[in-house]
Amino acid sequence: MKAVPEPFQQAGRQAMQWAQQLAQHTESPGMLTRTYLTPQHQAAAAALARWMEEAGMRVRRDNAGNVIGRYEAAPGHESAPSFVTGSHFDTVRNGGWYDGNLGIVLPLACIARWHRQGQRFAFPIEVIGFAEEEGVRFKATLLGSRTVAGTFDQAVLENRDSDGVTMRAAIRAAGLDPDGIAADAWQPGSMAAFVEVHIEQGPLLLNEDLPVGVVTAISGASRFMAEVHGLAGHAGTVPMHLRRDAAMAAAEIGLYIERRCSIKPELVGTMGLLEVVQGAANVVPGLASFSIDIRAEDDSDRLAAVADVKAEIDRIAARRQVQLALRQTHEAASVPCAPRLQAALAQSIAAAGWPVRHLPSGAGHDAMALAGLADVAMLFVRCGNGGISHHPDETMTEADAAIAAQVFSHLVEQFQP
Amino acid sequence: MKAVPEPFQQAGRQAMQWAQQLAQHTESPGMLTRTYLTPQHQAAAAALARWMEEAGMRVRRDNAGNVIGRYEAAPGHESAPSFVTGSHFDTVRNGGWYDGNLGIVLPLACIARWHRQGQRFAFPIEVIGFAEEEGVRFKATLLGSRTVAGTFDQAVLENRDSDGVTMRAAIRAAGLDPDGIAADAWQPGSMAAFVEVHIEQGPLLLNEDLPVGVVTAISGASRFMAEVHGLAGHAGTVPMHLRRDAAMAAAEIGLYIERRCSIKPELVGTMGLLEVVQGAANVVPGLASFSIDIRAEDDSDRLAAVADVKAEIDRIAARRQVQLALRQTHEAASVPCAPRLQAALAQSIAAAGWPVRHLPSGAGHDAMALAGLADVAMLFVRCGNGGISHHPDETMTEADAAIAAQVFSHLVEQFQP
Repeated sequence: MKAVPEPFQQAGRQAMQWAQQLAQHTESPGMLTRTYLTPQHQAAAAALARWMEEAGMRVRRDNAGNVIGRYEAAPGHESAPSFVTGSHFDTVRNGGWYDGNLGIVLPLACIARWHRQGQRFAFPIEVIGFAEEEGVRFKATLLGSRTVAGTFDQAVLENRDSDGVTMRAAIRAAGLDPDGIAADAWQPGSMAAFVEVHIEQGPLLLNEDLPVGVVTAISGASRFMAEVHGLAGHAGTVPMHLRRDAAMAAAEIGLYIERRCSIKPELVGTMGLLEVVQGAANVVPGLASFSIDIRAEDDSDRLAAVADVKAEIDRIAARRQVQLALRQTHEAASVPCAPRLQAALAQSIAAAGWPVRHLPSGAGHDAMALAGLADVAMLFVRCGNGGISHHPDETMTEADAAIAAQVFSHLVEQFQP
Repeated sequence: MKAVPEPFQQAGRQAMQWAQQLAQHTESPGMLTRTYLTPQHQAAAAALARWMEEAGMRVRRDNAGNVIGRYEAAPGHESAPSFVTGSHFDTVRNGGWYDGNLGIVLPLACIARWHRQGQRFAFPIEVIGFAEEEGVRFKATLLGSRTVAGTFDQAVLENRDSDGVTMRAAIRAAGLDPDGIAADAWQPGSMAAFVEVHIEQGPLLLNEDLPVGVVTAISGASRFMAEVHGLAGHAGTVPMHLRRDAAMAAAEIGLYIERRCSIKPELVGTMGLLEVVQGAANVVPGLASFSIDIRAEDDSDRLAAVADVKAEIDRIAARRQVQLALRQTHEAASVPCAPRLQAALAQSIAAAGWPVRHLPSGAGHDAMALAGLADVAMLFVRCGNGGISHHPDETMTEADAAIAAQVFSHLVEQFQP
């Protein structure tokens, strides 16, 4: 490991400041909540546009509200496909400062430096502040990146927020044209690569004392909601062997998922929701509900785990004489990162003096949506606080931002379209 | 098994009719909810008093609202201690018709027959309609039977219902005197025995095809509320081996309780409440809450199970690196039924031609509160529908009511004070 040169330290500092400033645009004082097309979200978009312009970029907004800054190529290379980066500037409720936002402001800080130095490349660089990724307001995710990728689902325009406002109306109210979204898709060939910078949102880099890592793939995911129908009874009068306890069936399923998904390191399984429905301390649970979330870098690992979990659910339900209603709510295949971009990122990390750690992304990201349009890759930056994210305790350090700026700058400077 | 003589068939029919009529006094149309001292509860009290008078009883009300009917002894025996029976006429929310109520109307139907025949005994018979047992309105249970037993806790007079009304004010509004409750305690020696008739609220008699059973004891119970503090994390990014999943700790504890309490037939353990607090499908649970309810006929069985569960909780918490906060909310020792009364009930069941089944009561009952004042016993009557109770699906048959009337009548007719 080497000392980080001063220009990158400065870029890291700048990125951290911008992240802090962005966090002031929040719908709820004292915490960070910024959902699609609220006034605070619009204010954040305006701030991003200003910073982009100050970094020498030409800024435009598409009809989904994405803020797109273009740092023009060196003369004669203006028509080359762009090197594209970026991430989302919406947040979950009571989220952290860096999730998404870092992936916009860190590249911006690097570009600001090139701009000050008058340095341009054989390709344009475009930074996209994606307007929506989290799906909080309208229960539909990745709206920004899907617009760019041309996979925006027009049907979600009719989704309503908790106040009954349709997405279509919200887009109109923001001065944008929902009917223009389809035409905002980027042309095939316009994007040389998409490389997203993002905090890890997990503890791996932290535990291994590494500031950055190369993402191998965005894990595929299968998600289910389940209801267990057993038989309610008096907690004092129904003997154990006559019970059909819905909660204990759910508990047994949960522990099986945990055990089954511990077999392979890059497989995870979670029962994030679990509840006895209308239970009481003195009643044997008659109804329980729970969720299942299974993810893996490798689709065959995931599908094998899902199949085993389903088979075990059937066995448990039969043995306990309960009925299981299982409903799949999500299914996404793994999105591999392009080997050539992974190699380039690895080279940049090594050049900065750090060991190269490859790791999958268990969380979904905008890069996922763009994989149909261009080669994608991701640079993960270490999370503090045990890897907590989607939470006010989400942290990262200025020192890591500086290293990320160094790695990202090297990547762009060495990039071969 | 013999055919049930017509007079008892008539008594069973009468008891079922009265139970149905009582069920019309409900706070919520279409379901049965009757809580302490509401207008509907008062109307039920008035109906009971009327039926008692029609059955030749002298009726009084004490200051807790208990409705007490006295069927006088044969001349010369007026000062003998009373044979006392009864149960409660309050209900849980959306409860069944027979829980509690049966134990008032079934003895009344028997007394009505003796009254018609002019038959009196060497002791008075008193039937108590206990005004409150379930604890729904004021979160304090057994108010009626504790008044009679002299163990009414004056502190609960300050408990408030969900509208903020104190129990003291509710008692006053019903025309009763809360300050007179203490003096309503019955004198030691005034009660020769207390024998409560009650539906089983469980499936044992149903499964063994028996109409009635003799209760051996009202099980002791230990109850706890628990919170598990783990570490929330992203369901996609936190590897299985680094998780501190609060829900899976709770699940493991639940399955241990289930296993441990299956060792002895008259021991039961229940996790009736179980919930991931503020969970989401894509978040590793950081906080879960659950309840524990452990009961046994034998106190040493229960306490051994509780100790084992606590030790296992400590082991699970240590292994999973979660914190457990365990708070005991209830502790009651087992209340044995008097052997001489059990024997008398057994004899009456045998006399009716039925096999004698002894079984513990896993649920609490008014008889529990009276054990300090007199010998107590209980006659269980078979529940239909898998033994469901505290639920609109609670059922029993007129045929079983007739058999219960036959057994109860025999018991009283053969009773030696």
